[in-house]
This record gives sequence, C-alpha cells and structure tokens, in this order.
Amino acid sequence: MYDRVTLIGCGLIGSSIAHAVKRHGLAKHVGIVEKTDILDRVRALDVAHDVTDDAAKAVRDADLVIICTPQSAYAAIAETIGRHLKTGATLTDVGSVKKAAIDALQPHLRNEVHLVPGHPIAGTENSGPEAGFAELFADRWVILTPLAHRGGAYDAAAQKLGEFWQAMGSKIATMPPDHHDRVLAMTSHLPHLIAYTIVDTCVKLEDSMQQEVIAYSASGFRDFTRIAASDPTMWRDIFLNNKDAVLDGLQRFIEDLMELQKAIRWDDGQKLFDVFTKTRAVRRSIIDQRQHIPEENKRKD
Amino acid sequence: MYDRVTLIGCGLIGSSIAHAVKRHGLAKHVGIVEKTDILDRVRALDVAHDVTDDAAKAVRDADLVIICTPQSAYAAIAETIGRHLKTGATLTDVGSVKKAAIDALQPHLRNEVHLVPGHPIAGTENSGPEAGFAELFADRWVILTPLAHRGGAYDAAAQKLGEFWQAMGSKIATMPPDHHDRVLAMTSHLPHLIAYTIVDTCVKLEDSMQQEVIAYSASGFRDFTRIAASDPTMWRDIFLNNKDAVLDGLQRFIEDLMELQKAIRWDDGQKLFDVFTKTRAVRRSIIDQRQHIPEENKRKD
Repeated sequence: MYDRVTLIGCGLIGSSIAHAVKRHGLAKHVGIVEKTDILDRVRALDVAHDVTDDAAKAVRDADLVIICTPQSAYAAIAETIGRHLKTGATLTDVGSVKKAAIDALQPHLRNEVHLVPGHPIAGTENSGPEAGFAELFADRWVILTPLAHRGGAYDAAAQKLGEFWQAMGSKIATMPPDHHDRVLAMTSHLPHLIAYTIVDTCVKLEDSMQQEVIAYSASGFRDFTRIAASDPTMWRDIFLNNKDAVLDGLQRFIEDLMELQKAIRWDDGQKLFDVFTKTRAVRRSIIDQRQHIPEENKRKD
Repeated sequence: MYDRVTLIGCGLIGSSIAHAVKRHGLAKHVGIVEKTDILDRVRALDVAHDVTDDAAKAVRDADLVIICTPQSAYAAIAETIGRHLKTGATLTDVGSVKKAAIDALQPHLRNEVHLVPGHPIAGTENSGPEAGFAELFADRWVILTPLAHRGGAYDAAAQKLGEFWQAMGSKIATMPPDHHDRVLAMTSHLPHLIAYTIVDTCVKLEDSMQQEVIAYSASGFRDFTRIAASDPTMWRDIFLNNKDAVLDGLQRFIEDLMELQKAIRWDDGQKLFDVFTKTRAVRRSIIDQRQHIPEENKRKD
C-alpha cells in the first residue's frame, strides 16, 4: 500500500505494526528507528529492512511515518524529523491522547506533510519489542482524528491511512481529537488510574497481609493487577497529557463511590441492588455488540 | 466420600458442586433444595437424585449439607433446618463473608452438628443453575474457617470437608473467620465495589457519550464491566455483611487515589512513574505463584 513505511519506536505497538505489515505485505520497505542500545533486539525480530537510531535519515524517503513512542517524546521527535519529511508524506501516531499529540507535533511540520493522528485501541500489559505480534489489531478499533478543513490531498491521505489499518484487520472510526480524549478518559484512562490505585493500596498493606492478598487474589483484584502492570512511562504520559478529562472523570467517579459508600454504611441494600442491576445491563450491551467477533478474541476480554 | 450430600441453593456455585460431585463420584446420594419455581430447571441439569423445595426433609439424613444461597437467606435457612440436621452431620457454606455466616447459622444449631464455614474463591460473572460446570473449582483456593476449640470429632469433620474440596480439584487454606473477611475485602470485595462504581459512572453519562464508551471500551473498562455484571443479590449481601472491612479498605483506597489525583493535577510525573513501577511488580508476584497452574486456567485470568 505504501512504498516506504518508517516506524519511530518499536515497543508493543510499533513491533506489532511491523509484524502485521510484513504478514500482510503492506509496504515494499520498512524502516524502524529506536534507541542505540536496543537496535540489536529490534533487528532480531526480522521485521524491517532497515533498523537505525538516526530518525532524520530514516524518514527522508518515507511515504508513511508512524510515531510509536511514549507521548513525552513527541515534540523532540517532531523537531528532529520535521524538516526531513518529504512533500506529500503522511505522519501519524498511535498515542492515547490526541489533542496533546497534535499540539506537540504540528508546530514542527510543513504544510505539505499530512498529519493524521491515530489511536489503535489495542494492547496487552506487556511492553518492549518482543511483546509485539501481527494479530494485535485484528477486530480492534482504530480511531483517527484528522485535522479539519484540509482539502483534497489531505483527505485522500487520511482515507489511505484508514485502509492501511483495515488491511491489518482493524475497524476504523473518525472523531474530533478532544472528543476522542473525553471518551478514552472514561473507557481507558480512568479505569487504569483506579487499577493502579487499588494495587498501590495493596502494596502499602503490612507484609503478611500483602502476601495473602496476592496468594488469594480472586477475579477482581487479579484483573486489576494485570491492568496495573501496564507500561509506567506510557501511562505517566497519558495522565499528564489528558489531565482535564481524567480529573473530570475522576470527580464523577468519586461522587458515585461516595453514594455507594453511604449505602453500605447505612445498610441501604435496595440502593446497592438497584445500582448493581443497572451495571449488569452494560455488560450485556458490550456482549451484544461483539457477537461477530471470533471466539479466539473474545476469550481475551 | 459422603453417603448423602444436600445442597441448599443451586446457582453458579451450588450447581457447579453438584456437577463436580457427580463427575468425581463423591456421594452416593445428592439432594438439591431450591425455590419451587425453578425446580424444573434444576432437574433438567440431571445432577441430583432428589430435587425439592422442602429443606427440612432434604437435610434429615444428610452427612454433609452445603448452603449455597445469598447470605441474606442464611438465618432463615438455619432456623428451618436446625432441628432436622442429624447428629454428626457437617454443615458448611460457600459465602464470601465468614464472620457473618457464623453469626447467622450457629444460634440455630445443636452442638452435635459440625459447622465448618467455607469459601471457594471461584466464580464467573454468570449466575443461575445453568451457569454451573464441574471444573469451576479446579486449581482454585477454598478457604475454610473452622471454629476454635471444638475437639476431635469436629476436627475430623473439618479435615474430611477439606478432602472433599480437594477431590474436586481445589487447594485448601485455613484461617480465622475475621482474618478471612479482611483479606477478601481487599482481594475481592473492594475491587468489585470499584468496578460497580465506574460502570455506574458510565451509566450516568449522557446517552451519546455512553454509547461511545461502550463501543470503544478498551481493556480496562471492559474488564470492569465483566466484574460489575456479577450477581446483584449476592454482592448486596457481601457489602452489608462485611461492612467494616470494606469501609476500611475503601478509606485506604481513597487516600491513595487522592495522592494520584494530586500528582496528575500538579504534573508530578515522577510520582506517577514510581507508583506505576511498584504496582507492576505485584503482577509479577502473582504470575510467579501460578507457574504450576495449567495453561487453560491461566487464560481465563
């Protein structure tokens, strides 16, 4: 689909894209940019034609450049590659906060480069080059947040990027960046913050109790530990970059938590029963929506 | 192992015990007590010799009676069956709060009946007789909280009950009831309360946003919806019965959440990174502990 694709960053997502591009034959040439000290690990994956630590050189002839690093690195990367991107090239990313991504990247780009921010809603709690696999994006949503009022060539570039993701098995949605950030604050960022917190609460228990909590961790706590094992750098950046939406979601959550706390304290069983009945229905909505998804993917959820 | 086993209640857990007893041949006769209107559904499972709504009659000759109902029903059940349990019979349960279970059951029992409370740490988000399956307890912990200072016949009864669970594939732990309740408040009750809350927060969003949150629910929110789909009656009872330990855990959680909120508000990336690094290590402890568990069970977690 593209002659030359360059990935900047080869963690779970970047590595999975490289695997998927190879599997589906989506580019004639794949370049990967990484830090000097992990170049050998990336080369060992055998998914790229060129693996280098020189970003400026690696993007020079690329038709598509995908930034797959933590978002705190975006501004410096854009400053490095901005002048070297070729006219008509598409630049995208895979970060979880779209408004901050645009703010960090756009000032360094020429008008002739098509910035089409993107976010694949896919991941595991593992990170690093070796964590990637070609099927990560199959049947997963990729949300694109194209810039407004750009005209024909830009729209064609955004359209083609969507088809690229579809070729890796993804479903495409399009929405404004700030709307994306509010939706993701609720579906992903707030749940991660809460999972990190409850595992942190466990870490602070006295030693013997902590050992038992780990030993007897049931569904519930065990699910939270998986979420709270996600990459620390990536999630630090997400919370700092989507601060307003996360803090707003957190306030709503705390209000609702106080209501349930009050119901427990005052033995209001009817209130608890009513809330738990409503929340059960949400699960049904999700299951209904996913009837078409293959069994193998369902089991992971 | 027992001549006659009677299960009172045939939801997910009761039905799974009946399946497992049949699969492993652990009783000559299995009786199940349920409400009149679901007797036909229980009979359709074909896992019991006798299915009835008459609890008093069903326990009369039983060597082992297992109460598998929500805990709010315990006191009334004990009052009904107390006089009919035979001398030397073992009475146990599967409830998630052990101190409250003992308080509800013991006043109605004669000294010649061995009350050995138990709690299998196993479950799914499904409920009802049809949700049960024989492998539910395989490689799962069952915590027994035997009463103190009871002597030889009682200890033998507790020992035999442990062997009964082991025959269904479970691992056995023993601890005092109030200690069990504090551990489970952290591993299970608090995580469920938090999952219920965040899904409740989603339910209260304006309609369009709610639809999108459901559509794009990522790992994180999706895991929470599964937990928040657990049986409303059972969980209402758990929170009311383990109020003190849950409220204590909740206070610790809120303190830690306020620390992370503050770190986000004041851009304290180092604080976030440090917490997320510590919580990641907890996952590793859990994975290390589970190396011996078959692949099939691991995948469910």
